[in-house]
Amino acid sequence: MRNLKLTIQYDGSRYCGWQKQPDFSGIQGTIEYAIYEITREKIKIEASGRTDAGVHALGQVANFKTNSTIPASRIPDALNAKLPKDISIIDCQEVSEDFHSRYSAKGKVYRYLIYNRPYRSPLYKNISYHVKYELDLERMKRESKSLLGTHDFKGFRKDGSSVRGTMRTIHDITIEENDGLIVLEVYGNGFLYNMVRIIVGTLVDMGRGKIDKSMEEIIASKDKYEAGHTAPAHGLFLKKVHY
Amino acid sequence: MRNLKLTIQYDGSRYCGWQKQPDFSGIQGTIEYAIYEITREKIKIEASGRTDAGVHALGQVANFKTNSTIPASRIPDALNAKLPKDISIIDCQEVSEDFHSRYSAKGKVYRYLIYNRPYRSPLYKNISYHVKYELDLERMKRESKSLLGTHDFKGFRKDGSSVRGTMRTIHDITIEENDGLIVLEVYGNGFLYNMVRIIVGTLVDMGRGKIDKSMEEIIASKDKYEAGHTAPAHGLFLKKVHY
Repeated sequence: MRNLKLTIQYDGSRYCGWQKQPDFSGIQGTIEYAIYEITREKIKIEASGRTDAGVHALGQVANFKTNSTIPASRIPDALNAKLPKDISIIDCQEVSEDFHSRYSAKGKVYRYLIYNRPYRSPLYKNISYHVKYELDLERMKRESKSLLGTHDFKGFRKDGSSVRGTMRTIHDITIEENDGLIVLEVYGNGFLYNMVRIIVGTLVDMGRGKIDKSMEEIIASKDKYEAGHTAPAHGLFLKKVHY
Repeated sequence: MRNLKLTIQYDGSRYCGWQKQPDFSGIQGTIEYAIYEITREKIKIEASGRTDAGVHALGQVANFKTNSTIPASRIPDALNAKLPKDISIIDCQEVSEDFHSRYSAKGKVYRYLIYNRPYRSPLYKNISYHVKYELDLERMKRESKSLLGTHDFKGFRKDGSSVRGTMRTIHDITIEENDGLIVLEVYGNGFLYNMVRIIVGTLVDMGRGKIDKSMEEIIASKDKYEAGHTAPAHGLFLKKVHY
């Protein structure tokens, strides 16, 4: 069987998330049905990771095994013709049999958008977190650098989520502002559940002056109650998966 | 009577444009009704200029005369509470009686977004022009510089549109690309009907190699048939009005 790797963009606004739910197909099920329409195969696709309701993707990756002989280069147009406009296949490559979009992933880049102006924006409403308060961007940039490197991010995950380990490595983090739109990008070897959204919420709380502690102290505390709030899902984008 | 100047953002996707139409209220009518709801006055607002169906605004300006005593600083929140989410008042200032959003305008900045990737983008679908062909961005940047200065832009307006004169001055034009998103911004003392969209269409046709003539030659021809196509409305944003 061939193993095909898809790169996918989606606007997550309308979806309950990546994963299939009892009553909703989710993004996964929507793509699986489009694959069925072009191949007549009932296959299961595996993503690099699930995304929550409202979260977007600029470069989600998923793979599936198929007997279809459609050339990989023709798959994006074929699937896009069947998919709703808020999902788009932007690349398809044939990969080796042992490639697995989740287990083969070496790192991920997330982007988070904050719209920092007093009044709401009609143009950014579904793709950014509206923060109406003034933010000390320099403090946010400075404190974000303490996230770099390998740390125990136990305090930066959703309460009750369980994973084997909570050590993660952040390779890079950047924060840029243009015309009221703050773009945060973070590249790491992996992220705990809600970790990016808690990092953003913590930085926003620092920028507003609601948190006096340093990021270094908060990481060291390993305590979710020391970190800031969880920024909303609709500002988050899975930008790229590294293999 | 007080003269109030509003700065307005909108996502034009749902609207037939700024202007009231027989069966539709347009953006103008929607805002006029919101003003009625907070002041009980049936007023008419005047914009710096109309925008077509699908065109967006980051900084449209409109003014209206009122007997209301609501402080200007409280108008944005009061109106935003009545307006649909795709329109937002981002500023309100009390201005002198003779201020007129259209006649007092000294210049405008438009932004145009082109999404230049082979496959459609779910995230930029309503706010950018999808060009799937490879574009020679360097040629586009080079040729765009010939637009600077004062020229007769007769070839860059919609057929049949009538205005007194077709001389316009372009003060600045920039083209930047990031991750497949091309951002064009143009600042001029005024623009003919569809002028920005024809400039963009001409530059795209140059970038694709469909037009061999230089921008200088096309301007000199004063002939719409020498210029390129009219880029679609939904990539266009009225960014700022200068007074």
